[in-house]
Amino acid sequence: MEGGDGPYSYTQNSEYQKQSLDSAKQLTNELIDQHLVVGNHPCSFSNSYRVADFGCSVGPNTFCAVHNIIEAVENKYKSQKMESRTPEFHVFFNDHVGNDFNTLFRNIPATGRYFAAGVPGSFHGRLLPSSTLHFAHCSTALHWLSKIPKEVTDKNSPAWNKGRIHYAGAAKEVKDAYSTQFAKDFDSFLSARAQELVPGGLMVLVSLGFPDGVQVCESSMGENFNILGSCFLDIAKTGIITQEMVDSFNLPFYYPWPSELKSLIDVNGLFEIKKIEKLVAPTRQVKPDLAVCVLHLRAILGELIKKHFGEGITDILFKRHTKKYVESPIVSDGRYFKETSYFVFLKRKMNCAS
Amino acid sequence: MEGGDGPYSYTQNSEYQKQSLDSAKQLTNELIDQHLVVGNHPCSFSNSYRVADFGCSVGPNTFCAVHNIIEAVENKYKSQKMESRTPEFHVFFNDHVGNDFNTLFRNIPATGRYFAAGVPGSFHGRLLPSSTLHFAHCSTALHWLSKIPKEVTDKNSPAWNKGRIHYAGAAKEVKDAYSTQFAKDFDSFLSARAQELVPGGLMVLVSLGFPDGVQVCESSMGENFNILGSCFLDIAKTGIITQEMVDSFNLPFYYPWPSELKSLIDVNGLFEIKKIEKLVAPTRQVKPDLAVCVLHLRAILGELIKKHFGEGITDILFKRHTKKYVESPIVSDGRYFKETSYFVFLKRKMNCAS
Repeated sequence: MEGGDGPYSYTQNSEYQKQSLDSAKQLTNELIDQHLVVGNHPCSFSNSYRVADFGCSVGPNTFCAVHNIIEAVENKYKSQKMESRTPEFHVFFNDHVGNDFNTLFRNIPATGRYFAAGVPGSFHGRLLPSSTLHFAHCSTALHWLSKIPKEVTDKNSPAWNKGRIHYAGAAKEVKDAYSTQFAKDFDSFLSARAQELVPGGLMVLVSLGFPDGVQVCESSMGENFNILGSCFLDIAKTGIITQEMVDSFNLPFYYPWPSELKSLIDVNGLFEIKKIEKLVAPTRQVKPDLAVCVLHLRAILGELIKKHFGEGITDILFKRHTKKYVESPIVSDGRYFKETSYFVFLKRKMNCAS
Repeated sequence: MEGGDGPYSYTQNSEYQKQSLDSAKQLTNELIDQHLVVGNHPCSFSNSYRVADFGCSVGPNTFCAVHNIIEAVENKYKSQKMESRTPEFHVFFNDHVGNDFNTLFRNIPATGRYFAAGVPGSFHGRLLPSSTLHFAHCSTALHWLSKIPKEVTDKNSPAWNKGRIHYAGAAKEVKDAYSTQFAKDFDSFLSARAQELVPGGLMVLVSLGFPDGVQVCESSMGENFNILGSCFLDIAKTGIITQEMVDSFNLPFYYPWPSELKSLIDVNGLFEIKKIEKLVAPTRQVKPDLAVCVLHLRAILGELIKKHFGEGITDILFKRHTKKYVESPIVSDGRYFKETSYFVFLKRKMNCAS
């Protein structure tokens, strides 16, 4: 992710995630009201309620999410006439160690409503001590794989993804390799959170994916990745980068179906599913602004591209991408906007064994 | 503080603090062994032991300090034959929001011995929920005042510090204003920590100061500040900065006597003093290396100077400072190295009221 606050930064280009959050707010409220057991704090001295946002980036969406959760918990205490026992909130903002925590910390709203801490590290592993977390949140981040499955860059594998940068439109074997990696990563995520959460602890996931059965290549997102891939190949022809560099570059994103999520949560076995629901995403109703779409893509992919290809090509790439993007009949056709956010509400099973 | 890892950074110029830490290590071990009550965890589900380092900067000293504390706690569990009940460690690294947490997080050793979190904010206020902390640590940071007392920059006050940048060698009223500010700041620090610590929780402070009765102006440190002040005045004469800018610039450092610390802890009333002891500081035995001393001063003061005077003057200032420093008979004379680190070990009183 691009850090800081500049025009290509994630901060300035995360409107889509913000809209998912707004849709998730009402559901979170309702489900916290239904499933939170108030006054049930395992610590005798302390009355603190610990919330973590996994994959928080640098804001502002993480602050909205945390604010919503705190408000919902406070409301539950009020509705139970236990306002005086409302806990102190301790909020953990997690992202990988390369995240711009300096910007995140400067952006934390000075409301005094909670104590804040930053937690660097991969959310595919353990980040907090056992049974200390009350509420886990992770929005629009689970589609980031921990790594590119190795078959995809192996010339001798049927899953070799030559000339493409994503599984969209690729051979079935490529998608299978991505899907297997996602299953491992999501299971690691669930197992780590299950250990960190107190028994009965709650978790909200907002997962970016596609409706059951819909393939990424049938969507404007898939078309967009294909356009970007073809731009890399064009640049390779000019000699600035090599074909091998393109063949070995793959976007670490997997977009699961809700049925996949459900099945993986069931197999993991540590959580009860309280709700899986499609979120209304208002951007889908209107034709997206080209400049916004390109800035958004650049905010997300800029760092990945720099890391693989070096500093030089980003400007050339996105100039070329914009030109092809404008000419595509698919990317701006509302019928192809099929990517969907799914809201998942889980409860850590009471059985402590994990 | 200068962030990052460059030649003027705090990371590369914190040898003195490191030496204090080494001397503090043995004392910390002994006192943890004496005063830690093992197996006494207030949480029924969780077995975690929370440690915070206040004013951690970006490392590496904070990692040594935390490592020592964890080792001492583990040793206590071993010696009590309760090794199997050794807790998980959760470590909170605190510094003000302008600290370079990105560098701190990159520097955290990958030992897997503890879960790490960064906590941005002033340690003069609350940073963690009530009664959740087991061990507080603060080394060579308490001499930083939260602000310059306003009388010191007030032309109409007898404490106006015209033509100087510190209370060293200034009128009694200037020192009194600094001392009053320190008393307020230290009391705020103690009260905040007392709320955060569990009853019976432990705290180590390493405080940079002078032996009872010794004035800063009698030391090489005081002389060094006076030389630096005179360099500012020299530069003001060239017109690059104004005399008013020098008059309104004051270093936010107060170096208490151990008797002052003791008295302020007693007045605060929330902690039992288990030990106050002078630390052996090996650098005092050898003539300091000039380049190291200047780099050290620059690492500490560079940011403060930039903030007040703008980007331009730091190089000119330290070039001039080095010249005068070399010519001073006092700064490099071992008899004037009087600054001393004091080790303070406190226990949070069991009475919860604060």
